[in-house]
Amino acid sequence: MKINVLDTTLRDGEQTPGVSLTSSEKLRIASKLDELGVNIIEAGSAITSKGERIAIKTITSEDLNAEICSFTRTIKGDVDAALECDVDSIHLVVPTSNLHIEQKLKKTKEEVLNQAIETAQYAIDHGLKVELSAEDATRTDMDFLIKVFEEGISIGVDRLCACDTVGILTPDKSYDFYSKLSTLDVPLSVHCHNDFGLAVANTLSAIKAGASQFHSTINGIGERAGNASLEEVVVSLDNLYNDYQTDIKINQLYSVSRMVARLTGVYLQPNKAIVGENAFAHESGIHADGIIKNSSTYEPITPETVGHKRKFVLGKHIGSKGLKQRLDDSKFNYTQVQFNEIFNKVKYLGDLGKCVTDVDLQAIADEVLEIEKNDKIKLEELSIVSGNKVIPTASIKLKIEDKDILEASVGVGPVDAAIGAVKKGIADVADIELEEYHVDAITGGTNALIDVILKLRLGDKIISARSTQPDIINASVDAYLSGVNRLLEVDSND
Amino acid sequence: MKINVLDTTLRDGEQTPGVSLTSSEKLRIASKLDELGVNIIEAGSAITSKGERIAIKTITSEDLNAEICSFTRTIKGDVDAALECDVDSIHLVVPTSNLHIEQKLKKTKEEVLNQAIETAQYAIDHGLKVELSAEDATRTDMDFLIKVFEEGISIGVDRLCACDTVGILTPDKSYDFYSKLSTLDVPLSVHCHNDFGLAVANTLSAIKAGASQFHSTINGIGERAGNASLEEVVVSLDNLYNDYQTDIKINQLYSVSRMVARLTGVYLQPNKAIVGENAFAHESGIHADGIIKNSSTYEPITPETVGHKRKFVLGKHIGSKGLKQRLDDSKFNYTQVQFNEIFNKVKYLGDLGKCVTDVDLQAIADEVLEIEKNDKIKLEELSIVSGNKVIPTASIKLKIEDKDILEASVGVGPVDAAIGAVKKGIADVADIELEEYHVDAITGGTNALIDVILKLRLGDKIISARSTQPDIINASVDAYLSGVNRLLEVDSND
Repeated sequence: MKINVLDTTLRDGEQTPGVSLTSSEKLRIASKLDELGVNIIEAGSAITSKGERIAIKTITSEDLNAEICSFTRTIKGDVDAALECDVDSIHLVVPTSNLHIEQKLKKTKEEVLNQAIETAQYAIDHGLKVELSAEDATRTDMDFLIKVFEEGISIGVDRLCACDTVGILTPDKSYDFYSKLSTLDVPLSVHCHNDFGLAVANTLSAIKAGASQFHSTINGIGERAGNASLEEVVVSLDNLYNDYQTDIKINQLYSVSRMVARLTGVYLQPNKAIVGENAFAHESGIHADGIIKNSSTYEPITPETVGHKRKFVLGKHIGSKGLKQRLDDSKFNYTQVQFNEIFNKVKYLGDLGKCVTDVDLQAIADEVLEIEKNDKIKLEELSIVSGNKVIPTASIKLKIEDKDILEASVGVGPVDAAIGAVKKGIADVADIELEEYHVDAITGGTNALIDVILKLRLGDKIISARSTQPDIINASVDAYLSGVNRLLEVDSND
Repeated sequence: MKINVLDTTLRDGEQTPGVSLTSSEKLRIASKLDELGVNIIEAGSAITSKGERIAIKTITSEDLNAEICSFTRTIKGDVDAALECDVDSIHLVVPTSNLHIEQKLKKTKEEVLNQAIETAQYAIDHGLKVELSAEDATRTDMDFLIKVFEEGISIGVDRLCACDTVGILTPDKSYDFYSKLSTLDVPLSVHCHNDFGLAVANTLSAIKAGASQFHSTINGIGERAGNASLEEVVVSLDNLYNDYQTDIKINQLYSVSRMVARLTGVYLQPNKAIVGENAFAHESGIHADGIIKNSSTYEPITPETVGHKRKFVLGKHIGSKGLKQRLDDSKFNYTQVQFNEIFNKVKYLGDLGKCVTDVDLQAIADEVLEIEKNDKIKLEELSIVSGNKVIPTASIKLKIEDKDILEASVGVGPVDAAIGAVKKGIADVADIELEEYHVDAITGGTNALIDVILKLRLGDKIISARSTQPDIINASVDAYLSGVNRLLEVDSND
């Protein structure tokens, strides 16, 4: 059975407190969702603001495959705003529970019903598709809910949607609830919130009960605990259930997730299912060992399925086989005695509460194997002066093959000045370009470790380097220079 | 029915790639879990390393109420290591699926079974409680699984556990699967992984099917997509199911979650259910309006239930009622015309893709209401010296009510030094704490704009402030001082 996907990342998702997208960001996400295979894109709520209308109009003026939809309340002005944006359809939301009708709207059921049907009629008369959606449906008297839906069907609404607005369903209750609605004459949509962590399971139950469309957001973002996560529902349907297909291109899920995280600023916890940074990461010895022998021992699907990557992380839980794999990947030669020494040092660092990075492993291995590090460019000295009335200025002393190089640079900030000085210093050695400069979000205190990752290019070679230090300037210069040295080494080995 | 909770934050949770806890951190978490009401604490895997054994021993030597447990493989040396740590029990894990037995262990079923029973017997003989746990149970031939469990029961193991090691159950499959095992003669435990986002739902189904104990971690941390989240299972049982009780003190869940996030460094996405920063946050006009009238319109439980707090966030989705509430909370006086102007400016900032902080709102209101801004503390001068051979040092000149204050501080980096100097400078004025320091991920080049957002606390008042500049030091100091000034103003208005 074909299941349609309505993505509401740009509406429910954008309602995530603190998230605001510009018009061009909304368009980028909409285009990506379209490419992903989403059937309906809820692009926003046209009545929200002038900027929102510009954003929706920008999306509808692109030639996307997906149906473009605006959220509206049961108010004609909301429909007019949607019409102004040239959307294909509206997601017309009518609160149906006594709680919402009495406490929030302070109206009677009849008033609410009449207003809903009038607004739906108005939208239909103006050529819009209408998805009639019951807010707080799961706390609504079933007779009234069916009455609202039947009156909607009688005037020709295209789809129905029942919302579990505060996420109180369980998988069993969801099955019972949607079963009662899926016998109505128009397609039924499920819209679940995640207040108890059950949005995905409840959505899957509703589909089993006959819903032919589900609402979801990328990464599960949304107000409070968010909505059902598109990637989790789609990948579950694909792997754990029979008989359901969607149009989603599953191998694009990771890249879409990354884009939405970057543009909304809502970063995922590493253990987010399917798309989290650790979704296919392994540290413990038992797991790494299993994965090396057969990935299905500890991965239900391969990371490539969703466009993600596997990684092995070093730490105190690492086993000898995982470490061996890592050393062999880096083409180290070692005896058993040397291996044991490296293994113990990695475990020791782990016991100290440290995560062992690639650079750490390299340093440990270099030390144990007595590999002499021979960087072409060495940092001798770096000085920074900065402040509110000072032009950020950096001076640098580099040793390049026994020659001292002194340079200085200003910048828009101290990091910019420091990297500027390094660039000048190495200009005669190699024409290296900084392709990308990235600092992971810093959370915690001002003494948090800062993770700088950058990409450098020399000709057609690109290399990434990283440094983690509490000082953002030193981390940036360190990452930059270690990248440059590696690039030069790779280059001279060619 | 009473449901027992085995918490494995310190074992499965610590296997989160990149997480390593020191011995004293493990003890702090164990004590907190004990206070929370967890029945069994899986404190680690004693065989892992010397540091791990020290950590577990530190925990067992405290007089905690909870049973303290170590993970072991079916190897006597693992049991010996556990005994060395004085644990009460072991979580004895035996891989039971053909895949794990053939591909990972390269053994026969008989060998695996014998080794499991021998190890269990060895542990029982040494006075340990044994929870016999089948790894990859959900991909195991049911007859073999029951055989393993029955042989375990015959020699006197205390509990059984069936693990959904790669998270492939659905709620329905989980119910069927655990139903078949819950008729055995000893208590049954469920252990679910979250690869498809279904760990919590599957755990709840298993409990319905007769499991009397579940495994979980705080915040759902763990290898890959992690484990079932303790807080989601417990709060779901408490609110959505009848007939199940746990010993968990639900109103401590938020503080335990925060502690684990801080000590593991695994920060939550804001939309994490129950304990995420946004779990009880509201931005959109419709929602804020509803909450003000009756919180149950958009919250299934109150934030206080789990020790959390509600917040209203300003952005382009804000409605007039939410904004009015915020302005009234801050004791502004305004006319309708002035209100409209503030409202439009907030919406305009939102359309630009900006999240509107407390300080932003203050600035807008001050401008519209023509309130003369009279910051108590003014930044006169800030100087930073830093580099690779220099201790990051900041000096600062502040004007506090016409008095010049000069201070200097060192730090782990230039930002830390600068904030340190500011803190010293204002120490006599107010005892302000930096609750949170966050820098959005920096992408692009070294001249990218840097967005610093921080939270400051004075007594029980918390406010957020932001600054966006290409210089991370100036941005940090600017955000910090504008937050301090706002806090002092709010405080003096009380």
